[in-house]
Amino acid sequence: MTNWHALIREQIAKERSAAVELLQEWVREPSVQGEERSIQEKIAARLHAMGMDVDMWVMEGEELLRHPYFVSPRTDFSASPNVVGVWKGTGGGRSLILNGHVDVVPAGDPAQWTHDPFSGEIVDGKLYGRGSTDMKGGNLSSLLAIQVLKALGVRLKGDVIFQSVVEEESGGAGTLATILRGYKADAALIPEPTNMKIFPKQQGSMWFRLQVKGRSAHGGTRYEGVSAIEKSMQVVYAIAKLEKERNERITDPLYAKLPIPIPINIGVIEGGKWPSSVADLVKLEGRMGVAPGEQMEDAKREMAEALADLAKQDPWFAEHPVELEWFGARWVPGDVGEDHPLMEILQQQFLQVKGERAVVEASPWGTDGGLLTALADTPAIIVGPGTTAIAHYPNESVELDAVFQCAEIFALTMMEWCGVEEA
Amino acid sequence: MTNWHALIREQIAKERSAAVELLQEWVREPSVQGEERSIQEKIAARLHAMGMDVDMWVMEGEELLRHPYFVSPRTDFSASPNVVGVWKGTGGGRSLILNGHVDVVPAGDPAQWTHDPFSGEIVDGKLYGRGSTDMKGGNLSSLLAIQVLKALGVRLKGDVIFQSVVEEESGGAGTLATILRGYKADAALIPEPTNMKIFPKQQGSMWFRLQVKGRSAHGGTRYEGVSAIEKSMQVVYAIAKLEKERNERITDPLYAKLPIPIPINIGVIEGGKWPSSVADLVKLEGRMGVAPGEQMEDAKREMAEALADLAKQDPWFAEHPVELEWFGARWVPGDVGEDHPLMEILQQQFLQVKGERAVVEASPWGTDGGLLTALADTPAIIVGPGTTAIAHYPNESVELDAVFQCAEIFALTMMEWCGVEEA
Repeated sequence: MTNWHALIREQIAKERSAAVELLQEWVREPSVQGEERSIQEKIAARLHAMGMDVDMWVMEGEELLRHPYFVSPRTDFSASPNVVGVWKGTGGGRSLILNGHVDVVPAGDPAQWTHDPFSGEIVDGKLYGRGSTDMKGGNLSSLLAIQVLKALGVRLKGDVIFQSVVEEESGGAGTLATILRGYKADAALIPEPTNMKIFPKQQGSMWFRLQVKGRSAHGGTRYEGVSAIEKSMQVVYAIAKLEKERNERITDPLYAKLPIPIPINIGVIEGGKWPSSVADLVKLEGRMGVAPGEQMEDAKREMAEALADLAKQDPWFAEHPVELEWFGARWVPGDVGEDHPLMEILQQQFLQVKGERAVVEASPWGTDGGLLTALADTPAIIVGPGTTAIAHYPNESVELDAVFQCAEIFALTMMEWCGVEEA
Repeated sequence: MTNWHALIREQIAKERSAAVELLQEWVREPSVQGEERSIQEKIAARLHAMGMDVDMWVMEGEELLRHPYFVSPRTDFSASPNVVGVWKGTGGGRSLILNGHVDVVPAGDPAQWTHDPFSGEIVDGKLYGRGSTDMKGGNLSSLLAIQVLKALGVRLKGDVIFQSVVEEESGGAGTLATILRGYKADAALIPEPTNMKIFPKQQGSMWFRLQVKGRSAHGGTRYEGVSAIEKSMQVVYAIAKLEKERNERITDPLYAKLPIPIPINIGVIEGGKWPSSVADLVKLEGRMGVAPGEQMEDAKREMAEALADLAKQDPWFAEHPVELEWFGARWVPGDVGEDHPLMEILQQQFLQVKGERAVVEASPWGTDGGLLTALADTPAIIVGPGTTAIAHYPNESVELDAVFQCAEIFALTMMEWCGVEEA
């Protein structure tokens, strides 16, 4: 009997050096929002060279732009094509989507980086650069898994659909467009940076903006006014209370290790214009976590109720209610049962490759997996190299060994999940 | 015996129509910071025509710019001359400064004004426009008082020094420059808008900026960070506590009617950059009231101590102390004894003109009077037409009757204070 695991490991070792160069090439592409065409064309060409059916298109049209799950600060994606490559199976097997995004968040202040943010420098086994962890490293794991199986002459029964999408960092319009284009599968893997923890459940999230009102006055007679800054402190407290109540309801053991499973974060505060005037308006912006399985509309209603309740403790809020607006990014929560067959296969292969049991948790942030699960009937599981702790920060990096271990686990998982046509 | 009061009232009535036109002309000059030359040249010409010794100059030089009380966002005043006119007395009397500023705060959004902010429209006995109350109306009272006495052939024994200064709204560099140029007197009147209350004491004030630190993290794992927004709530609370302690010490009956005699106002809050990130920095800007007779350095020290005390309740602040900076505007507190002879004279003339006793209080805001009292040995009393409630706001206006009553009171007060050389 063929020892596929040994062959896969050996093949990865052979391809490692070229694969590292490929990842460097990807990281050197500054594929921030609106700048994804160059890397996508390279990926499309590569998938084509690997013998896959390649679909590269610019998403557009009313069906997308008016879709209730469409979220993006823009409507013109001409510089940001989506790419999908299909490795057609021989038939009779389960299909698998390997989804990953190529858009990266801005590099921020280059002075805070030790190396150039788009250098792809390698130091002590880590490859540095914006997007290395989030999530070009993971994308390489997926691509390499396919490449290795093809090199070894493996013929899968089920289809493998490699998706290189845009717009994940802005709420998932790229993956939404693949769904509207008809792509779906029996399951999906998304190698977002989980530090190789397996996340069958993902927290959703959405952004809110609050306007807290006051009444202006001269600072020397501040008692003649009402400070929107003081009132906003009551609002921050009310939101902390809501966060506590919502989290006390979370009993899922997958969340046991998280101090606050579904946080509500107030990230921006801005109000008042003059040191010696009483502020008449404070704007707060934040992110509300949504539990796996929770309807986003229910979470929105709870927020609106918590703000309305402020009127009970302070008549000011009865006459000047806090204005609530949902804006900007939104990620649908995802929820795949822990007993899902892909979960079982994934954990077996993890154990085989790493020699230890995988940690199974629920993710504290949203991914495109929520859309795949909710809209495409494609249960999505999140597992990949890299850690979120350094995503979006200066000196983002990914550990190369983890990238190749993930490729090994993915290749074995694909064989088990999709099935292999014997020669 | 001549009934001077009747003569003065009669003369004011004669000059009223021309004086209203003059006030309109002044209000039509948009003398915001950096745009004061035009009105100052007109005032200088008028003082000259009235037979006064006129001194118009552009303040400059190291003595001014390096003076510990110099505060201004600019150092070039070439578009903003100061004007002083001296009516020399016959000798042997007490001298008097009539100080007022011509700089006005910006008009703000014109859409919030019923009339053009620089129209000088008159409706129902009120003259509308930016600067009408603060304080061109009061300046007219001073000028008219001199004009009327001169018209009546009154010869005062003491000098009268009419000061039309710039930069009051930015902290008093204009009045500071008159002091450095050598102008001083036995007392001063400043017709800021007190609604004709007499303020022998004035609250000083100064601006502060605080930087409250946090540690960034992704909003989905906000417990890995430290929210500068939450920390800033502790800072706001600590400042409220300091305000309470400072005000409990104020026992002066002149402050009895003010709910908070020397408020600390936090007017601006700004922090965080992204709804789904934990804010790592919040900036707070505010105004600290300084009690009459209090040293500004003592008030600064109390603020620094209150912020340092935060470390006792929360170790975060021990490692990340709140940064305190004093910036921008500053007004020195003023403190003239209620038994000062000018107080007595002023109240007598008020009673004579208005038929009721004047209200004596302490001002909730600073004026240039603090500088005159502290640096020029010139006790300054604040009393004038108009109300601060509408100063700095849209539809600022001044009641014309109050302007002319103030002129009447000032003319009588000048005769009593400076003394009259009998013909």
